[in-house]
Amino acid sequence: MIRHYILGTPAATPAVPCAPPMSPLPPDPPLAVSQEGRAAVLTLPLQPRDQVFGLGEQVRGMNKRGHLYRSFNVDHFPHTEDVRSLYCTHNFLLILPERGECLGIFADSAGEVLFDIGFTEHDRLSVRAAFGMHLYILREEDPRTLCRSFRALIGRSYIPPLFGLGYIQSRWGYASDTAVRTIVREHRERHIPLDGVCLDIDYMDHFASFTWNPDAFPDPAGLNRDMKALHVRLIPIMDAGISLEQTPEIAEEGVKRGYMITTESGAPFEGAVWPGLCLFTDFLQPPARSWFGSLYRKLLEAGFEGFWNDMNEPSVFYTDAGLQEAYEITDRYRNTRPCLEDTWKLLNAFSSLMGREKDLEGLRQKDGEREVSHLEVHNLYGTGMVMATQEGFHQYDPNRRFLLFARSGSIGSHRYGGLWQGDNASWWSHLLLNLKMMPALNMCGYLYCGADVGGFSCDTTEDLLLRWLGLAIFTPLMRNHSSLNTRDQEIYRFPAWKKMRSLLTIRYALIPYLYSLLVDCALNHDLMFRPLAFDYPGDPLARRCEDQVMLGEGMLAPVVEQNAEGRYVYLPEDMLCLRFRSDTDLDRIPMKRGLHDLSLKTEEAVLFLKKNTVLPLALPGAESTDQLVMTAFRLEGWVEEEASFRLFTDDGLSLPLQGIWHGIRVFSAPCGFRAESDLHLDLSHLISGEVKA
Amino acid sequence: MIRHYILGTPAATPAVPCAPPMSPLPPDPPLAVSQEGRAAVLTLPLQPRDQVFGLGEQVRGMNKRGHLYRSFNVDHFPHTEDVRSLYCTHNFLLILPERGECLGIFADSAGEVLFDIGFTEHDRLSVRAAFGMHLYILREEDPRTLCRSFRALIGRSYIPPLFGLGYIQSRWGYASDTAVRTIVREHRERHIPLDGVCLDIDYMDHFASFTWNPDAFPDPAGLNRDMKALHVRLIPIMDAGISLEQTPEIAEEGVKRGYMITTESGAPFEGAVWPGLCLFTDFLQPPARSWFGSLYRKLLEAGFEGFWNDMNEPSVFYTDAGLQEAYEITDRYRNTRPCLEDTWKLLNAFSSLMGREKDLEGLRQKDGEREVSHLEVHNLYGTGMVMATQEGFHQYDPNRRFLLFARSGSIGSHRYGGLWQGDNASWWSHLLLNLKMMPALNMCGYLYCGADVGGFSCDTTEDLLLRWLGLAIFTPLMRNHSSLNTRDQEIYRFPAWKKMRSLLTIRYALIPYLYSLLVDCALNHDLMFRPLAFDYPGDPLARRCEDQVMLGEGMLAPVVEQNAEGRYVYLPEDMLCLRFRSDTDLDRIPMKRGLHDLSLKTEEAVLFLKKNTVLPLALPGAESTDQLVMTAFRLEGWVEEEASFRLFTDDGLSLPLQGIWHGIRVFSAPCGFRAESDLHLDLSHLISGEVKA
Repeated sequence: MIRHYILGTPAATPAVPCAPPMSPLPPDPPLAVSQEGRAAVLTLPLQPRDQVFGLGEQVRGMNKRGHLYRSFNVDHFPHTEDVRSLYCTHNFLLILPERGECLGIFADSAGEVLFDIGFTEHDRLSVRAAFGMHLYILREEDPRTLCRSFRALIGRSYIPPLFGLGYIQSRWGYASDTAVRTIVREHRERHIPLDGVCLDIDYMDHFASFTWNPDAFPDPAGLNRDMKALHVRLIPIMDAGISLEQTPEIAEEGVKRGYMITTESGAPFEGAVWPGLCLFTDFLQPPARSWFGSLYRKLLEAGFEGFWNDMNEPSVFYTDAGLQEAYEITDRYRNTRPCLEDTWKLLNAFSSLMGREKDLEGLRQKDGEREVSHLEVHNLYGTGMVMATQEGFHQYDPNRRFLLFARSGSIGSHRYGGLWQGDNASWWSHLLLNLKMMPALNMCGYLYCGADVGGFSCDTTEDLLLRWLGLAIFTPLMRNHSSLNTRDQEIYRFPAWKKMRSLLTIRYALIPYLYSLLVDCALNHDLMFRPLAFDYPGDPLARRCEDQVMLGEGMLAPVVEQNAEGRYVYLPEDMLCLRFRSDTDLDRIPMKRGLHDLSLKTEEAVLFLKKNTVLPLALPGAESTDQLVMTAFRLEGWVEEEASFRLFTDDGLSLPLQGIWHGIRVFSAPCGFRAESDLHLDLSHLISGEVKA
Repeated sequence: MIRHYILGTPAATPAVPCAPPMSPLPPDPPLAVSQEGRAAVLTLPLQPRDQVFGLGEQVRGMNKRGHLYRSFNVDHFPHTEDVRSLYCTHNFLLILPERGECLGIFADSAGEVLFDIGFTEHDRLSVRAAFGMHLYILREEDPRTLCRSFRALIGRSYIPPLFGLGYIQSRWGYASDTAVRTIVREHRERHIPLDGVCLDIDYMDHFASFTWNPDAFPDPAGLNRDMKALHVRLIPIMDAGISLEQTPEIAEEGVKRGYMITTESGAPFEGAVWPGLCLFTDFLQPPARSWFGSLYRKLLEAGFEGFWNDMNEPSVFYTDAGLQEAYEITDRYRNTRPCLEDTWKLLNAFSSLMGREKDLEGLRQKDGEREVSHLEVHNLYGTGMVMATQEGFHQYDPNRRFLLFARSGSIGSHRYGGLWQGDNASWWSHLLLNLKMMPALNMCGYLYCGADVGGFSCDTTEDLLLRWLGLAIFTPLMRNHSSLNTRDQEIYRFPAWKKMRSLLTIRYALIPYLYSLLVDCALNHDLMFRPLAFDYPGDPLARRCEDQVMLGEGMLAPVVEQNAEGRYVYLPEDMLCLRFRSDTDLDRIPMKRGLHDLSLKTEEAVLFLKKNTVLPLALPGAESTDQLVMTAFRLEGWVEEEASFRLFTDDGLSLPLQGIWHGIRVFSAPCGFRAESDLHLDLSHLISGEVKA
């Protein structure tokens, strides 16, 4: 059941393509709504054991209770647990009571939204949308049904091309054509699987979007051609700002057409990002999106098949007004020795310019004919860029899926692209955060997502990268990415690179499974990743589990602690533990429901399968998705009666999606297993019978 | 076995009061030493399962393996897992191999020391002391013996007065006499136990050490008298710097006597801290320490019995030279729009001034007649201040223990004062870090220590404070402390204050036990807190446990995760679980060795006791240590044969320590228990027999 209310006069968002009819206010108690000026507030008492899931890309637990979260997209670093805003706005909550109906809340609003989830008072939830909201209230018997209902409301999730599920290597600092070729060669020579290499801002001319460094990257089309011959796609970054200095012709055209965000005076807003002062496209305007999208054409013609959108919160390092204020402050203190609070005014005068919200106040955008303040629609900025990018792809080739993942977005952008979990750090706690975010992102529509494997900022260690690979081989987006001035993080840099390579062979064996699951969940609005609480709401240990997640009919329980040689795993039912060392070297351990201590070496990755489910694994040998055999599979599983799986195959790039669903059914018989399928299946590793271990 | 080597020409430190004779270099393989200019390097291969404990106040796990740590005392915030330096320098490591002898390494050096513990290469440990080191290599069969041997080497740990084990309330922002009286009244009216209130920089005149704000705190002696009548001690902060503006007479005297740190030119070094520009006492000089100590006299005469030393890394916000450089940088960019790396040069020009190491280069101190560069002895600064403070106490009253805990220090300062774990945050991960640091601090000599309960920076929540109390009732220093501009954090501010009060009643019941244990461990160089690995080195699950610690003959396993209604606990042997809700309301659950799921409500705290040990608990009712009855106790325990405990009582403040050890022996008999003791003991809650649950 979905009810739709409108509170105040919120700006439109693209979150809900086809809204259900409006219900009269107020919603049923105990929900209560009120208005405070333009702000709309929803409050709700929380019962002691209510769990609150959702919010997509956010810090802290899968259960979000006990913190104050703020939807206001920012380029914020580092992601510590006190942080209130990250790059995205995913205003969906699911309240799972101890028993009884689940409640869903979607605060569809493009401005600031505050979620006080038992922070101020442990037994009270409030949602405050600064500029009003479309409020969607969902009620269903169980959480997964509720999520499906919500996902159907917000529309089908983005499906990437198949190569997007391959392993992607990335780093801020691949400074030349030669560097990229070296990276690829180092992988191929060692037979480390690889599908893509991201180009960070280094490929651009002075870091300006829609430019190309002619010295360091003299021949993009040639580079693309050579890489593609090696089954590697190059995936350039694109930043939101349009550089005034590097691309004046684009900036001028944008201004002339009225496509740029303006200040109150009507002048284009200028904010500094990597290349210095930039203008910012008003992505609210459909023609502006179309125009921005058209700027990708040159790069598409040079053979690129995917991009990542960055700095699209938008991130602004400083403005002229900000600089002026900072100089005024520091000039005032010149020849003094400030003390007390004056110390911080001086010391922070310039450093506080980055992401200064004051810079965004007064900015204007156009919502159709209506002029709106940027703050009312701030959280749509990343989404608008993603929509514009997809429009550019469509203009160029409407029959092809391009790869796209973005840093910023809001619910709605999930239909146009995936996301990475922002600029994380080489922290063990961020490995765990990677895990915790996955179900929340799925709830909000993002299936194609993952975190920077190994961590973006700070120095990784060999064991952290190994453990991170042990999780990331299961996330649809699997990108090793690191920042300039951090330790080299490519797999081949480490003495244990062979172990890492072995983990990647598992990934490639899993790709047909993950791709099928992703397509299935996109078409059926389902969750690939789920908290254990969703599958086992009546099981207290499953409900409180914050370091394991369901994936399809399986369960993940990665090691997220340094120096641990294993971990405690809670099995909510009997499961088959697949402890992989490579795609072909694995232990198959049937395990009983309950709490277990499981040893897990750094080179091992683990997946648990529910009984009577099967996991199709690709045949060994593929070092890229191009090389995957999609007609023959090995099945893993613990089959007592029968198990089935629907496997999807297609060309991996067509739009609209065209492909074949292959039904796989396996039956346990007294003397072995029998399969029904149009695929060639190896059943010799399936297990039946009682728990041995 | 201890061997002592000297590598290079390190400055003397007070860490080892009586060094054993020097051994000829090199130490036995596989240890290897080398010199690189003035630097001395020790390297050692690590076996795959070697665990590395120690380093006192540092981030990350109890097992320190896998990170690069830097001993260079800094005022650093926030304490994320990538941080390399905190406020203290505790250069002791213990390597616990899978089997065989333990190895101890103490890099006694006052300058920078880098510990690469399997960071660059997983199988290699290196210790690099920039200015050479006295190297102590210890070998013992078991880790606890090794620690005792090390602790005997570095001398007896500081023992606080008894009231230091009471509950202490603190906050940056108690801005007046009235505010302090209100805080105390709010506790006393609600019968929330309380022994002390810390005064932060608010009590000073313009935040200058050795001053008193005459308006906000008109009558310190009167305030002290009134508070003491309520059994509350006030504990003022003292910062290291001497304000030029607020206390020119002190500054001038210090300069005249040649007691201040100088620049290369011989002029006193001036660095800004809270009150603006300050001078810094050269604590290396014994007469300077004595002089600095004498400055406490006025405050001692006003009735204060304890202090906390802060900003003694030393923390410097900026210097004139730094300001000048920052202005030069920002002037250079005026009227430009910097891009690329210039952006960060501008934006960080002022913010990078705080803690700028360049400011410390070239500074001079006096080591006896020899002039040394500050960098050679940097890490002794906090220790010198602690020594000076104790000297002031001794000058004032040589027969009395005063309370003292400090932010900065190095091994050696443990003989003169305790420490708090620095400016932590209201993070759940810092609650866990509190636990992990305790054994490491004990190893390095600090018994009187604890973290800011509830977290210093950021906003706490009711449940975080409850859980933190659930751990902190067991740490010798138990101070609730929070920063200006954070949520009020006093217990009585929360709806659940009665639950918190109940947790405090457990603390007060535990004080005689904790005090006895602390005195015992100080006199016998033993550890109150230990990793489970120390007690059960042959048990793989105990060895890897990072969220439980041994305390005396008990074990702690607090809940450190938000919204958890319990946790997994591993018992390395049969133990009695005491699940407390208050000093008198508790469950006594005998539990078998193994992995358990234990439910723990936020209002519950848990302590596990080994079989045949007893826990003496004070009688209920005390709201301060003054009111504790020290002659009658209730015993808790699971006694199959017999159990004993040595309880220490004294006046709680004499120096040297004078008191009585009361032997408690309990015997299990067929029809109950029998005790031998000079104390009145209630045995009615003791348990015997088989495991019921």
